[in-house]
Amino acid sequence: MAAIRIAVVGMGKIARDQHLPSIAGNTEFELVASVSPRDPGVEGVANFKSLEALLADGPAIDAIALCTPPQVRYSLAAMALDKGLHVFLEKPPGATLAEVDALEAQAAQTGATLFAGWHSRFAAGVAPAKAWLADRRIDRVSIVWREDVRVWHPGQAWIWEPGGLGVFDPGINALSIATEILPEPFFLASATLSTPANRAAPIAADLAFRSASGTPITMDLDWRQTGPQSWDIVVDTDAGTLRLARGGAVLTLPEGSSEHDDAEYAGLYARFAALVRDGRSEVDTTPFTLVADAFLRGTRVSVAAFDD
Amino acid sequence: MAAIRIAVVGMGKIARDQHLPSIAGNTEFELVASVSPRDPGVEGVANFKSLEALLADGPAIDAIALCTPPQVRYSLAAMALDKGLHVFLEKPPGATLAEVDALEAQAAQTGATLFAGWHSRFAAGVAPAKAWLADRRIDRVSIVWREDVRVWHPGQAWIWEPGGLGVFDPGINALSIATEILPEPFFLASATLSTPANRAAPIAADLAFRSASGTPITMDLDWRQTGPQSWDIVVDTDAGTLRLARGGAVLTLPEGSSEHDDAEYAGLYARFAALVRDGRSEVDTTPFTLVADAFLRGTRVSVAAFDD
Repeated sequence: MAAIRIAVVGMGKIARDQHLPSIAGNTEFELVASVSPRDPGVEGVANFKSLEALLADGPAIDAIALCTPPQVRYSLAAMALDKGLHVFLEKPPGATLAEVDALEAQAAQTGATLFAGWHSRFAAGVAPAKAWLADRRIDRVSIVWREDVRVWHPGQAWIWEPGGLGVFDPGINALSIATEILPEPFFLASATLSTPANRAAPIAADLAFRSASGTPITMDLDWRQTGPQSWDIVVDTDAGTLRLARGGAVLTLPEGSSEHDDAEYAGLYARFAALVRDGRSEVDTTPFTLVADAFLRGTRVSVAAFDD
Repeated sequence: MAAIRIAVVGMGKIARDQHLPSIAGNTEFELVASVSPRDPGVEGVANFKSLEALLADGPAIDAIALCTPPQVRYSLAAMALDKGLHVFLEKPPGATLAEVDALEAQAAQTGATLFAGWHSRFAAGVAPAKAWLADRRIDRVSIVWREDVRVWHPGQAWIWEPGGLGVFDPGINALSIATEILPEPFFLASATLSTPANRAAPIAADLAFRSASGTPITMDLDWRQTGPQSWDIVVDTDAGTLRLARGGAVLTLPEGSSEHDDAEYAGLYARFAALVRDGRSEVDTTPFTLVADAFLRGTRVSVAAFDD
């Protein structure tokens, strides 16, 4: 079959670090254009200042990968779907839930593929963790996601603005894993969101969820962690304890550990290709819904100002 | 056909003012029990202290209407659906979006009817407004919902707590109408939520939405209104201006006005009966999603303390 001709829109760090190498490494895709208002683009392919310019004057394309900040993603995705193009949305899939629901409906009408990608779900330990948990009685789940925002998001002002998710930007990765591996749905019971006095978005959050059958799930998010970083999910079951560490890369079961090289974005692009070939969409908004529920129902507390 | 044997759960003001008269006035329903931990119940039917007690020892029932505060609604609804009972959820349908999504999935599995009722959609002007707008070009929408919280929610502490919606408790009624009558979906662009210094939930909010094709929609919510109260939606179109006043009861079109007696809850129960007879569910979470998006993306400002 002919390769899927794809353009990458929004040539920031995630596009260069992850999307371009994964596209280059997958023969089902052919990179034919990039879109960036400021950036020189990608060597060997045409760069356009806007998606409008690409659609008006550019080479024929079948799909776009949207790597812009979420605040501007809806109008770009709607424009692409309107042309019948397939769309891969980076996480989070939008700035609001309602707009993602509308994109899903639009894709269903046009027959194009819409893929809301959750890269952490493609971490090496996630699929085996899901398989192992499928038959267990789950007694307790603990999620601890503690990292140093100065290391991972230096000077990124937008992440602290309204509509930026603050510490839920990494936290939503944890939720994308938890919603994938746990056999039951779960819901927010209570949350405390700690927001620096000089910022709009939380720097830390303590959350308590309960599964449909009552299993307690706690989540501890903190962006003020220095020293060792934690991206861990621990699940206590009737058959012992499962631990997913390093954001899903390292799986430890009672019978032993496994660790694999990072292949999250390779997995994402393999899934996107399969969805396009099958004429299907995949838009699971559950992780985003849980974050919105935390903002909706959580208690706000003000904490020390943060400057980076 | 035999009447639908129904129990009302949560015997507060809305149950007595609206649900009981509407059930009594609809021959498709037979009230057979009430559930209230403190209340003496309803004359002529058995009252139970809990839903568990009703299910264990009560008369046979086919359906429940859940009129409790939203914070406790999920577990009651899940318990009822698990028994194959049909469930009518008062608005808002839950304390979080994720739990409503889970109830919808559970109802689909059991085959029971789940009905998330939005009473304002059954106001007399809403259906004709929707029909009139279906073919118009819509240029601008203004929603103004200004009421005196001291009159409408005197001393209701829970409405100010995290998970209570504050001024979005009435505001979600406006959104339930707007999402019903406007032909396009719309999404939050920006919001300012004004929260009293001594409360957790907003007392006022200014919101800007845009429809999928770019139509601006503004919403002005305020609980500090004394004197005349406003529950108005004004839609400017290529064929003139539509006005829905008094929460949807009074419709004014360029060709004239119409006003009808309140029949919102009669309409809700007629719909619930039809859904049960047809073996279908109706769970539109769009109004709740838009409120969650406002909490997710809105800017918070602190305003004067409020005491009632």
